[in-house]
Amino acid sequence: MEPDYSRYASVFSWRYASPEMRALFSERENRLRWRKVWVALAKAQHKAGLVSAKEFAQLEKHALDVDVGKAHEIEKRIKHDLMAELKTFAGQAGAAGGRLHLGATSMDIEDNADALRSRKALRMIRQKVARLLQAYRKRVVLHKDVRCMALTHLQTAEPTTVGYRFCNYAQDIVMDLGYLKNLENDVRGKGFKGAVGTSASYEELLKGKNMNAEEMEREAMNDLGLKAFEVSTQVYPRKVDYLVLSALASVAASLHKFALDLRVLQSPYVFEVMEPFAEMQVGSSAMPFKRNPVKAERLCSLARYVGALPPVAWENTANSILERTLDDSANRRIILPEAFMALDEALMVAIGLAEGLRINRKVIEKNFRTYAPFALTEALLMRLVEHGEDRQKMHEHLRSLSLKAWQSVQDGKPNPLEQLAVEDKKITRHIPVKELKKLFAQDHVGLAVHKCAKYAKIMDEVLSKHPVSSKRLEANF
Amino acid sequence: MEPDYSRYASVFSWRYASPEMRALFSERENRLRWRKVWVALAKAQHKAGLVSAKEFAQLEKHALDVDVGKAHEIEKRIKHDLMAELKTFAGQAGAAGGRLHLGATSMDIEDNADALRSRKALRMIRQKVARLLQAYRKRVVLHKDVRCMALTHLQTAEPTTVGYRFCNYAQDIVMDLGYLKNLENDVRGKGFKGAVGTSASYEELLKGKNMNAEEMEREAMNDLGLKAFEVSTQVYPRKVDYLVLSALASVAASLHKFALDLRVLQSPYVFEVMEPFAEMQVGSSAMPFKRNPVKAERLCSLARYVGALPPVAWENTANSILERTLDDSANRRIILPEAFMALDEALMVAIGLAEGLRINRKVIEKNFRTYAPFALTEALLMRLVEHGEDRQKMHEHLRSLSLKAWQSVQDGKPNPLEQLAVEDKKITRHIPVKELKKLFAQDHVGLAVHKCAKYAKIMDEVLSKHPVSSKRLEANF
Amino acid sequence: MEPDYSRYASVFSWRYASPEMRALFSERENRLRWRKVWVALAKAQHKAGLVSAKEFAQLEKHALDVDVGKAHEIEKRIKHDLMAELKTFAGQAGAAGGRLHLGATSMDIEDNADALRSRKALRMIRQKVARLLQAYRKRVVLHKDVRCMALTHLQTAEPTTVGYRFCNYAQDIVMDLGYLKNLENDVRGKGFKGAVGTSASYEELLKGKNMNAEEMEREAMNDLGLKAFEVSTQVYPRKVDYLVLSALASVAASLHKFALDLRVLQSPYVFEVMEPFAEMQVGSSAMPFKRNPVKAERLCSLARYVGALPPVAWENTANSILERTLDDSANRRIILPEAFMALDEALMVAIGLAEGLRINRKVIEKNFRTYAPFALTEALLMRLVEHGEDRQKMHEHLRSLSLKAWQSVQDGKPNPLEQLAVEDKKITRHIPVKELKKLFAQDHVGLAVHKCAKYAKIMDEVLSKHPVSSKRLEANF
Amino acid sequence: MEPDYSRYASVFSWRYASPEMRALFSERENRLRWRKVWVALAKAQHKAGLVSAKEFAQLEKHALDVDVGKAHEIEKRIKHDLMAELKTFAGQAGAAGGRLHLGATSMDIEDNADALRSRKALRMIRQKVARLLQAYRKRVVLHKDVRCMALTHLQTAEPTTVGYRFCNYAQDIVMDLGYLKNLENDVRGKGFKGAVGTSASYEELLKGKNMNAEEMEREAMNDLGLKAFEVSTQVYPRKVDYLVLSALASVAASLHKFALDLRVLQSPYVFEVMEPFAEMQVGSSAMPFKRNPVKAERLCSLARYVGALPPVAWENTANSILERTLDDSANRRIILPEAFMALDEALMVAIGLAEGLRINRKVIEKNFRTYAPFALTEALLMRLVEHGEDRQKMHEHLRSLSLKAWQSVQDGKPNPLEQLAVEDKKITRHIPVKELKKLFAQDHVGLAVHKCAKYAKIMDEVLSKHPVSSKRLEANF
Repeated sequence: MEPDYSRYASVFSWRYASPEMRALFSERENRLRWRKVWVALAKAQHKAGLVSAKEFAQLEKHALDVDVGKAHEIEKRIKHDLMAELKTFAGQAGAAGGRLHLGATSMDIEDNADALRSRKALRMIRQKVARLLQAYRKRVVLHKDVRCMALTHLQTAEPTTVGYRFCNYAQDIVMDLGYLKNLENDVRGKGFKGAVGTSASYEELLKGKNMNAEEMEREAMNDLGLKAFEVSTQVYPRKVDYLVLSALASVAASLHKFALDLRVLQSPYVFEVMEPFAEMQVGSSAMPFKRNPVKAERLCSLARYVGALPPVAWENTANSILERTLDDSANRRIILPEAFMALDEALMVAIGLAEGLRINRKVIEKNFRTYAPFALTEALLMRLVEHGEDRQKMHEHLRSLSLKAWQSVQDGKPNPLEQLAVEDKKITRHIPVKELKKLFAQDHVGLAVHKCAKYAKIMDEVLSKHPVSSKRLEANF
Repeated sequence: MEPDYSRYASVFSWRYASPEMRALFSERENRLRWRKVWVALAKAQHKAGLVSAKEFAQLEKHALDVDVGKAHEIEKRIKHDLMAELKTFAGQAGAAGGRLHLGATSMDIEDNADALRSRKALRMIRQKVARLLQAYRKRVVLHKDVRCMALTHLQTAEPTTVGYRFCNYAQDIVMDLGYLKNLENDVRGKGFKGAVGTSASYEELLKGKNMNAEEMEREAMNDLGLKAFEVSTQVYPRKVDYLVLSALASVAASLHKFALDLRVLQSPYVFEVMEPFAEMQVGSSAMPFKRNPVKAERLCSLARYVGALPPVAWENTANSILERTLDDSANRRIILPEAFMALDEALMVAIGLAEGLRINRKVIEKNFRTYAPFALTEALLMRLVEHGEDRQKMHEHLRSLSLKAWQSVQDGKPNPLEQLAVEDKKITRHIPVKELKKLFAQDHVGLAVHKCAKYAKIMDEVLSKHPVSSKRLEANF
Repeated sequence: MEPDYSRYASVFSWRYASPEMRALFSERENRLRWRKVWVALAKAQHKAGLVSAKEFAQLEKHALDVDVGKAHEIEKRIKHDLMAELKTFAGQAGAAGGRLHLGATSMDIEDNADALRSRKALRMIRQKVARLLQAYRKRVVLHKDVRCMALTHLQTAEPTTVGYRFCNYAQDIVMDLGYLKNLENDVRGKGFKGAVGTSASYEELLKGKNMNAEEMEREAMNDLGLKAFEVSTQVYPRKVDYLVLSALASVAASLHKFALDLRVLQSPYVFEVMEPFAEMQVGSSAMPFKRNPVKAERLCSLARYVGALPPVAWENTANSILERTLDDSANRRIILPEAFMALDEALMVAIGLAEGLRINRKVIEKNFRTYAPFALTEALLMRLVEHGEDRQKMHEHLRSLSLKAWQSVQDGKPNPLEQLAVEDKKITRHIPVKELKKLFAQDHVGLAVHKCAKYAKIMDEVLSKHPVSSKRLEANF
Repeated sequence: MEPDYSRYASVFSWRYASPEMRALFSERENRLRWRKVWVALAKAQHKAGLVSAKEFAQLEKHALDVDVGKAHEIEKRIKHDLMAELKTFAGQAGAAGGRLHLGATSMDIEDNADALRSRKALRMIRQKVARLLQAYRKRVVLHKDVRCMALTHLQTAEPTTVGYRFCNYAQDIVMDLGYLKNLENDVRGKGFKGAVGTSASYEELLKGKNMNAEEMEREAMNDLGLKAFEVSTQVYPRKVDYLVLSALASVAASLHKFALDLRVLQSPYVFEVMEPFAEMQVGSSAMPFKRNPVKAERLCSLARYVGALPPVAWENTANSILERTLDDSANRRIILPEAFMALDEALMVAIGLAEGLRINRKVIEKNFRTYAPFALTEALLMRLVEHGEDRQKMHEHLRSLSLKAWQSVQDGKPNPLEQLAVEDKKITRHIPVKELKKLFAQDHVGLAVHKCAKYAKIMDEVLSKHPVSSKRLEANF
């Protein structure tokens, strides 16, 4: 069926995010969750003797009969989305319909449903982060000893290895995984506490019954598989939304950093890596080597949006007055779904990049040979000083050799610094040519390779605690 | 036709924003604008002798034949939305199709189209702001002398008038109108400057023709009715987006302040105003006077979202590298439409509130009588000092009278302060009872009424410079 | 000594924040921490045989001899704050000075020092949050059964208790305490890993020694009592700063919500609580009951600043390129200290409010009597329906009674609803007057009192896990 | 005098910002401005007959005798900074002291002083932006025809010129200049309108005098050289702060983009420009060519902070309730000064960079020769098609030549593409070698040079409207 192209459609309806994530935030699933909560409440109230077995059976039977069109018609009249769904559900359930929502306030339904949704979405995100970690792990193992120039200030500094770089990306998301997991456990529902959180309406209903409101809540929440906050206002504490969005933003920051690095490394001036490219996706006709890093750029763009949303939840939290004001409602319809979906897309892109990245080993090595010798003069200086030379003088001397070598590099020639040293009496007086060559042949990567092996084990341990998404990642537009 | 409820649909597809604004940001209109820009370019190139009259006629003929479904199919393959539309358009135009996009880079088309869109959206927003000003103006005139208690720190302070309060709301959006108007004039297109802004491709094409690239650009932009930036990179300066979003956020702040005031004034403790309510929209069954200010709350909620978006545009501006990086693209698909649509909805709500608000004059007067006398003791003190009393002693004396009066007020009785003064020898010794009564009968509203009249004239002047939306504002869900 | 008033001085130098927190972020303590890290490194290197016992003793001896003035002079010349301190320290240590900083890069020193600082600051914050929880706990116990009107949408809704309200404030910061504690454990140092995180320079130095760079790092970090990240770039992952600032912002949101509630409740229209006031701090002369809630307002103001800072850290994290860029440095000098100090001040204010708040029980009860009866009609309706009355008709009937009662309330009279019901045949036909009076005499606070008792126990448990600040909170300006 | 290093000192007290800007936001100048406003009020009231000539003379005489220490002592007692200053001033003025602040509320003084301050600070910023424009202008003229590779997506694209790039930087700040100028005109004071904006207290005072409150306000504001808002609450509309901070953030975004470009261009892989370096500031000892772009990085860091502050002002604006709440006060003490000072520093850095930048022409030309030929194949393809070749086939052919050439480039050799073309029969069959060489010798920079000349004139025009800071920019730490 053709969508309606004459009105705004969010990029998250079709362009970005996985089908699962889009479905999770659909009108249909929102309503299924509401019904699930109503049914759990009815079940507990059935146990309490407020709803008969027959009534409950009737309710349960229609729990999946969502009819969005019908509900929207009703909403147009009564201006209340949940109540419109309630009427729709109740209409389907016949006489039992009146047993729905007993003692409940809207937020007893919505907030538990929202908590279920956030928790599931967090889990979906976590699975994708774990998959990304898996991809990083492969890179760490594969490229642990691929030496390359590290850059600080965007300036070539000392050497490192490609694998070690990936350890750092990995470490970032290992932190994120921990926070996401904690948060999943911490996301709780409002429970069933009525209009202002005191459970007064339920207590009223349950007078003379075999359970009190606290017990009834426990029954229903157990049924939902969700913990409830011990106390509440009309809603669950809105700071939960802030914590959720901040955790998503934290993942987004990790991904942005990874993608920005790749964008720099893909520049023809550096050219150490290349994004995976689809068959049909031609680069520039004239510049066949040109591979615009559009995936990494898209990732950065979406990450930035995710990073900007926590302040909205912060304001919702901070400005909610007394037992609740409704100034959170309209923007929560936007920021919660869109933060999850934007991050979902960003993660799919990140996984695609990490799994499919081409490493230009030859170029990496060329860049290494060009710039590493400069870094090695530091070790050379230390040796010369050990042999009794004046540090200041030698420093000046090496500096002039380096400048000469740099000139060559600027002319596109290989770095002649080693050769200059070999031919230099002031140096060879102390250090035999053979030793000198050994010095310049060094990787100078310190513990990088060792750390890769060690960190791979740490990642294994971490991965053992987190399920990994194994979904085939379908390309969106 | 039934929308697809099993995937996420933005609230801006159906719940919030006006139909016009939703249409402006639809896939359909986006593509119509692209085609408009292509046709303008072809027309200029026709004048330059690059496109024949017949070819141009063929292009113009199909300018409106948008076929989104087809374009999406192509995009799935080639991963480029504008190029997919180009192929669709070209396919419709037969042989002339090859004359589209001559010398152009994608952003020559997109950025001019985006500028047209932003300018139109700004104008639509401005028209609604003007309509809101009109509504405020009516309130100023109508309530200019309705005296009421002003609150500072949420504490009753001195008196003011309802009309004067509206002058302040009005003054806020008068500022906004000025900025919006300026911005509309300042929103410019990229023009036609090719891949890196140098117009090299056009210069190449126009070699030996009767116009150069600058003249060609002028022709095409005149046709579009849009100014071009004098210079550009691949894109128009992204700071324009920041300025646009900041201007929208500024309006949003004005509206939020207005709505928050109304939310406070609607509390039963204050109860000075009431939101207009729809027929079917019942308040609480048990509390018939209860009118949850859900419209004002929705406004605040959406305003908060609008207020959070400029930082995304800021980052796009600040982090764009050299002749452009694509890290702006994905989030611009979200933040530009949604900022406009969220503000559009907020404005409709604000207009509805300003036009339909119920002013509870009786309650306002009751509150005035209760709290104003306290403020009047200041004037009383000044008079007593003029009559030679010691300021410190009199202050203490009035303070004790006030405390006694406050006690009465706390017990729900009318403020007895005037009576206490009348019966007080220390006071009547200097000030005759009649004069005293006159003092307490004062409005003490200073220039408020005068300023209302004056500001109404200023608003007339302002309104004469801005078109006013006269659209019937249809209620959304 | 008189400060220099002719140049800008931050409010955190004198107006806001505790002396301890200001000291923690002072130049002096920054330098003491750097020296501490240098000494720990030297100690480990002493064990490795790189630094002699005598040298180490010399270094340790001067570890506290910070001389900021001297260091600044040097910095003016060499434009590097840490290096200037190093020169100052080295100068004091004589020959041993050259054994400082062996193999280190600046960030080996700074980032460990920063981690020590953040961890300590987090702990100081946590102690104050715990103290606030203690104050809340007292309020919960003290006011657990003080019934009052709950407000949703700023409209009086159903009853609750003052104590239960404090349970909700408490629950917010119980969450915060958990996050702060986690974070304190997670804040790790960079360790000693050199210029690009590979430990190459240390490996070079330690060739032939009895420990490798990993062991040396472990020694030094143990000495500092700080865990190190397993891997690093030139710096520790900047996302830690984001997590820290987000946790602070989360506390700030909790405090803002509390303070905003108090500001509303202090309005003379509501008047249920009053801020504690200092002796000398007179309210308005004319309005002796007027107590501008300036403390709560200050809290909100500072909380807002804290809430705005995480995005800066997000950008630092997301935009750091490869092994590090320095675009984080200048703003970290602002946002880290100021977020901690602003929150520190906000917490002191919150504690002062929670500990010193005056609860106007009489007014609370008056408000309760005025508004609660409306809420009780819901229970009445349920009973009438149980007695076989038509719901719709009875609803309409109660609505008209309520409207009449509301009219009285608006005139400043007590709510006559109970009396109207007692005199109403349609009601008393089913419900005897005695029962009716019982119904209206209800608190209708559900489980509120029970929950207070329960939650007090939970707070005890939580408090047993967190040290409580017992500092006397000195008033700032 | 030695500052107190044992408590936090903001970086803006000594490390960043110009002395003038720091002074503008000092306690001293804040108090001088308050006194200036008091004196202006007294002068107008003197004209109105409320203050005698002698009294006024007495007040004027002590207007500059700020004594911060004394005022702070008083503030400690009375907890009100402005009142403490008032007492200090009044104490100095003897009997006339009592004629200060007649009819005024604190915000009559503070808000006018703040407006004076913001306007002056805006002007100081604008002068620096103009100076930066001047520097850009020089670059445009100087480098207008220095051809270089443009980069899109961080990938070499088509050629441009260094001067044209500077046109784009210039165009960004030309926009900023316009907004700053507008804003300077729009920054208005609250005027003298008393506690809730009605001027009631002044009207009371002026009863029977020869001027009313509106005239008195006009007198005083004329004296201050500041326009007043037509209406006000207790304060000027806080949206002005939002507009000011947004304008500063807009400048910050322009500067960040410029500095980020320079950071990329300084990478040894690109090496087209170099930051100016101070004599004493040595780069890395081992890598003499290494010039960490620390100034550009500092600029980016501070710009990010500036960019994060408008949301605080947004919240202040949006959440101010009715005639004003004080939740803006504490954070305004931070965000206004620090936004100005951070931008001030960023501008000084930007000016230093623009004025002192070293352009590595040789490297630029080398990069051009390496990458431009790829871009030129597009023109070649067009020519071949004109000669009747099949576009598809020729495209494939050129692609294979380009790939071969790219291989050479990767090996560090000059780009052989031209030579490959010259030796290629399929090409030379249509295009004579001479013409081919001409084609490859092209700059392909389109209108870049022409636009530089044109834009230089535009800059002249712009500069004629804005004063240029000619202060010597002193280096900070």
